Amino acid sequence: MYEINIPEVHAEVSAAFYRYEKALVSNDVAVLDELFYNNEHTLRFGVTENLFSYAEIAAFRAARPSQGLARELIRTVITTYGRDFGVANTSFRREGSDRIGRQSHTWLRTPEGWRIVAAHVSLLPPGVA
Amino acid sequence: MYEINIPEVHAEVSAAFYRYEKALVSNDVAVLDELFYNNEHTLRFGVTENLFSYAEIAAFRAARPSQGLARELIRTVITTYGRDFGVANTSFRREGSDRIGRQSHTWLRTPEGWRIVAAHVSLLPPGVA
Repeated sequence: MYEINIPEVHAEVSAAFYRYEKALVSNDVAVLDELFYNNEHTLRFGVTENLFSYAEIAAFRAARPSQGLARELIRTVITTYGRDFGVANTSFRREGSDRIGRQSHTWLRTPEGWRIVAAHVSLLPPGVA
Repeated sequence: MYEINIPEVHAEVSAAFYRYEKALVSNDVAVLDELFYNNEHTLRFGVTENLFSYAEIAAFRAARPSQGLARELIRTVITTYGRDFGVANTSFRREGSDRIGRQSHTWLRTPEGWRIVAAHVSLLPPGVA
């Protein structure tokens, strides 16, 4: 059975998660692309789109507006299983919005570093916190 | 590096995924509870709620209405990494609704069998397919 939250593994995934967050709010597309696993199986369900492959995700990033990305994270939970897998889940609130969003990542250790193999982002219904 | 979609591993996770689906549409709470990993770190973001632990998920299941759960799956993608980890992502449409939902699972092999360690379910905005 996998050991949960080995401290150095948890620290590695946390560092990758916050590197992604910084890239997201600053629309650093190169880092966002880097941190998704470059593979046909990589998948991202966004707030308004379903993207089925690294290529589709990269095309979406390239076309995305770079305004209004700032957000506050709420109750981020990062959990690792063994040395090579982890999940990172957080809620968030964007500046100027009262909707609460949720973001889920599954992270995999690859020879190039930690990479996201699946992501899901959504908004709770209005009025639900 | 982990091998992707080893056939017997992919078959195991697929079997677990469809067992969960059958339990979901028939509101078989015992099987739904069984297939979430019984751990404080297990987490489920639902369409209208965020649940942070196996206990919170089980309490939600116990209180859930058992009507209107039938649904059609759309473009289910199950991908395994190595022998002990996998992700299952699907879209769905409930009977009587034109909203498209998305469901993401991260699965872990445990001594008791495959278990969900993180889940995220959401609806696309009205009119988005």
